[in-house]
Amino acid sequence: MIDLLQIAVFNAAYADAIDSDDLERWPSFFTAECNYRVTSIENYRAGLAAGLVWADTRDMLTDRVSALREANIYERHTYRHLIGIPLITEASDSTAQARTPFMVARIMHTGETDVFATGVYLDRFIRQDGQLLLSERIAVCDSSVVDTLLALPL
Amino acid sequence: MIDLLQIAVFNAAYADAIDSDDLERWPSFFTAECNYRVTSIENYRAGLAAGLVWADTRDMLTDRVSALREANIYERHTYRHLIGIPLITEASDSTAQARTPFMVARIMHTGETDVFATGVYLDRFIRQDGQLLLSERIAVCDSSVVDTLLALPL
Amino acid sequence: MIDLLQIAVFNAAYADAIDSDDLERWPSFFTAECNYRVTSIENYRAGLAAGLVWADTRDMLTDRVSALREANIYERHTYRHLIGIPLITEASDSTAQARTPFMVARIMHTGETDVFATGVYLDRFIRQDGQLLLSERIAVCDSSVVDTLLALPL
Repeated sequence: MIDLLQIAVFNAAYADAIDSDDLERWPSFFTAECNYRVTSIENYRAGLAAGLVWADTRDMLTDRVSALREANIYERHTYRHLIGIPLITEASDSTAQARTPFMVARIMHTGETDVFATGVYLDRFIRQDGQLLLSERIAVCDSSVVDTLLALPL
Repeated sequence: MIDLLQIAVFNAAYADAIDSDDLERWPSFFTAECNYRVTSIENYRAGLAAGLVWADTRDMLTDRVSALREANIYERHTYRHLIGIPLITEASDSTAQARTPFMVARIMHTGETDVFATGVYLDRFIRQDGQLLLSERIAVCDSSVVDTLLALPL
Repeated sequence: MIDLLQIAVFNAAYADAIDSDDLERWPSFFTAECNYRVTSIENYRAGLAAGLVWADTRDMLTDRVSALREANIYERHTYRHLIGIPLITEASDSTAQARTPFMVARIMHTGETDVFATGVYLDRFIRQDGQLLLSERIAVCDSSVVDTLLALPL
């Protein structure tokens, strides 16, 4: 059965890829067909599907990383994710659902650091060939202002 | 024996109830007779018993939630708790004591996010009918300024 | 084998010693010969060895605590560490390597709280007489500005 520690380790690796600027590894945490979204709690509750960031294949995530690299936007700042203990709402040998809080600090090139985003990941995991992957991650941000600044993945 | 993972999962559920505006579930994490306090490290060290927020029954916690709902104060902002790994200082089959760090971000209606409170939970747990409950939670805040702004539970 | 929970508990105790102003216990988390450094990601990537804070014995850490006590600098503020789940990159019965994210809030005497430092611990653990100890902790800060303000240990 997929358990708390497996998900916690997965999330630690996921955050580390983003925060250590190893963005090219980020899509590898998802299944080939997947649902990745960043939205706000207001939009999520209103049932608005898309949010500001949206992808439904791993290739779209890869494209997004390429775009970030080309635009060099990502060089202006880095993130540091602190991810909480997952609340598992459903689990079997090969699938799991969890909601997990996150807090992301943003470190500007000037060194200035602030709390950039907080919220909860609504996740669906699947085990494929022994490896845990996200078939869905909806990052529901507590603030609706975060969207307009969003560059790196949450 | 009550162990680290059980307490970590308990804390994750506790935080989720508050942060997802499911406040009515908050009192259910406590025993009928309980000690809930929010205080500052200065007051705690000085042995001042009460602190700003204080309750010794679950019913008082329920009253507090009702008051928050009626006043609609809580709609002006939300919290996001990040709760650390518990340090268990005593544990048996049916009871445990732990100290656990927390960091709480506050998200204003305008979207502005800041670190609202940090500190440590001083907890006494008890297992009743197979369920873990708090007989005592003293939220000792690192800052003494936090009190005056306090609305939602920590 | 040294595992995730053992390291997580170690980190919780480490943070608690610093954040509860029990600094004299801080050196006891290290081996007699050890490598403790605080540096920035920029300096770390540039291969600059020292960083702003640097020690290679436990005695040097003890001296640092004494200096802080005498200078009374540490009284002006406290820290609150939130430490993430360790990513273990190597482990055996008696040694382990891990990288673990941290977020540290600083609480000024006035009560003002901000995110002081974020980054990742690059750690080498060793088990001596049944006790887990750090033979190396390099605190790599995401911001290079943090150094100039540094007083308490990270």
